[in-house]
Amino acid sequence: MRTQVGIIGGGPSGLLLSQLLHLQGIDTVVLERHSRDYVLGRIRAGVLEHGFADLMREAQVSDRMDAEGEIHDGFDIAYDGKRHRVDLKGLTGGNTVIVYGQTELTRDLYEGRDRLGGVVVHNAEDVTPHAFDGNGSPYLTYRLGEAVHRVDCDFIVGCDGFHGVSRTSIPKDVLKEYETVYPIGWLGVLSRTPPVSKELIYVNHERGFALCSLRSQVLSRYYVQCTLDDSVEDWSDERFWAELIARLPEDAAATIVTGPSIEKSIAPLRSYVAEPMRYRNLFLAGDAAHIVPPTGARGLNSAASDIYYLYHAMVDHYRKGDPTGLDRYSERALARVWKGQRFSWWMTRLLHRFPDANDFDRRLQKTELDYLFSSQAAMQSLAENYVGLPF
Amino acid sequence: MRTQVGIIGGGPSGLLLSQLLHLQGIDTVVLERHSRDYVLGRIRAGVLEHGFADLMREAQVSDRMDAEGEIHDGFDIAYDGKRHRVDLKGLTGGNTVIVYGQTELTRDLYEGRDRLGGVVVHNAEDVTPHAFDGNGSPYLTYRLGEAVHRVDCDFIVGCDGFHGVSRTSIPKDVLKEYETVYPIGWLGVLSRTPPVSKELIYVNHERGFALCSLRSQVLSRYYVQCTLDDSVEDWSDERFWAELIARLPEDAAATIVTGPSIEKSIAPLRSYVAEPMRYRNLFLAGDAAHIVPPTGARGLNSAASDIYYLYHAMVDHYRKGDPTGLDRYSERALARVWKGQRFSWWMTRLLHRFPDANDFDRRLQKTELDYLFSSQAAMQSLAENYVGLPF
Repeated sequence: MRTQVGIIGGGPSGLLLSQLLHLQGIDTVVLERHSRDYVLGRIRAGVLEHGFADLMREAQVSDRMDAEGEIHDGFDIAYDGKRHRVDLKGLTGGNTVIVYGQTELTRDLYEGRDRLGGVVVHNAEDVTPHAFDGNGSPYLTYRLGEAVHRVDCDFIVGCDGFHGVSRTSIPKDVLKEYETVYPIGWLGVLSRTPPVSKELIYVNHERGFALCSLRSQVLSRYYVQCTLDDSVEDWSDERFWAELIARLPEDAAATIVTGPSIEKSIAPLRSYVAEPMRYRNLFLAGDAAHIVPPTGARGLNSAASDIYYLYHAMVDHYRKGDPTGLDRYSERALARVWKGQRFSWWMTRLLHRFPDANDFDRRLQKTELDYLFSSQAAMQSLAENYVGLPF
Repeated sequence: MRTQVGIIGGGPSGLLLSQLLHLQGIDTVVLERHSRDYVLGRIRAGVLEHGFADLMREAQVSDRMDAEGEIHDGFDIAYDGKRHRVDLKGLTGGNTVIVYGQTELTRDLYEGRDRLGGVVVHNAEDVTPHAFDGNGSPYLTYRLGEAVHRVDCDFIVGCDGFHGVSRTSIPKDVLKEYETVYPIGWLGVLSRTPPVSKELIYVNHERGFALCSLRSQVLSRYYVQCTLDDSVEDWSDERFWAELIARLPEDAAATIVTGPSIEKSIAPLRSYVAEPMRYRNLFLAGDAAHIVPPTGARGLNSAASDIYYLYHAMVDHYRKGDPTGLDRYSERALARVWKGQRFSWWMTRLLHRFPDANDFDRRLQKTELDYLFSSQAAMQSLAENYVGLPF
């Protein structure tokens, strides 16, 4: 098989890039090690930047997102028992976010790929990038059952997540890694109940952080900060709801509707960046190159910004013969990735209880919140990051 | 001796409060353990908030400050070898700071006190506050040579700094202390040379922080970050200038005028707050209750805001019989003190090299700077803190 851009990973990043390039007449093959059902079964992020939404529209896969996704003009931060609204729209001169589950978005991207006849190979085992170091032509190999297949290409793009093969294929002496592991986790529950609030509520509480999120007005997503020692088995539904309610401001605690969890999982909080994001003919995008803690909803959105830069770079290369975008991809993508890291770090520090925090740290955290809600400039800074900095 | 408000400490806070109250017909006595010359010999801060300057005008001691103090519309932050200007005036809608040495300001306050016939007792030894717990009337005792004197008063105000007797006189179980000690120091040099820049330059450099400050256009004040193990003896003038120049951006390094130091000292960096700032009839103000690291120039300015609240509270009490201001003094003063702490902490983290920082921390610091100079909102937030948040 021969293609122009070989993409490893059929999650949202790989599919979106594939779809965008296809519409520009650039041929791609996507190799995904899991089945489509498996990919669609992953419960992940749900808050899309307006710039991400624009990219979905450009990819002609936005109809359902625009019909069913919910535009959120703001969200609440609660601390000391009181709710304070962050008016994203007012603070940013009209920008908003769309709440639309990653599962739905991935489904739309698959439908888009199917509609255009895009090649997405599922259950591709042992996917391996080859000859991407500039000597000879790059190619990918993968195995379907007993048969080994080969895809020749001009470039390889690794959209295969943190545990994927792409990043680890880059020579160790080339790659510089940055990492911080937070001593806390998020215990998340999905439940088919009406959300306690139409908008998100981020809660700073002495018992720990909580988040009231949602996928739609009939599907709630709630989180409570837990320890890294906790396991899902420690948390019955009853214990989860009791803990969540204990952390909520009074009005929310009084009106929340509880129900059986339909998904329950614990995620550790980590910040990670690998540099550079390009090694010769191999490009990294999304979780393959960087991980953020979920506070601030930057994960999927940071991936989308990589795709934005890579998409335009590929188009400039193939349509205009201009290599600038590809040459500057790593630098441009990383500049925005790091700003997303900064914001995620700041939101994480602002809202959680850290076991290693002393009294001064805790008082400073409260002061940061007090200052935030007393300063138009500080609120604007939060808002411009939350809706997504300009590409 | 009988007065209305007994003030411990004849530094800027005590003198300013005494002067302001005197002008409102409220009688004060200031007890200072050192001589006037000693107090005037202390080289300290030099950047005054516009709100502080207004308070000096209200105290009728601003003539020389307004004539000789320099209005600064902005300052520079240098990193990665480049200077970036923070346009305080433009970003805050017209607010600025005044560069005017604490020594000069204290001299003006003494002249003001002399002019009105204010009582300032110097060389007062063993100053001790008594009966401030609400049982009986408060009074102060002090010793001049062999003679012990007594000042009866309605209230005692402790403006006697971090090592003073006031805070330590409050019962330990009442006082809550918050503290962070930074693993770095500032080595400062005063020299009779024209400053390298008309405005301040804060420098983030891989060798460590540096600051180009000034007292006037013929008196420079420079600092370099040093370790806590350093002593002044380790730093000859030659070594100091060489280290400073190594950290400056090229244009500044090329044009700086060096000369003999006329003062050289090392200060550790510390954040400290004691709460509450009132215990019955004893009030704390300035360094007696809180210390900030010098980055961000909040120290003297935080003291001034305490005096602002306490001055108005005393006037409301004596002139209107309204106790609200005194009752709310601690809460109001601390709200602003903590915001100053937050800003000082942020500026300190932003600009220094910390021995315990990992690669992620360092990259995040650079990103914070990149974000700052790419965001109007973030710049406004910095500027509004630097010129002083509203009282």
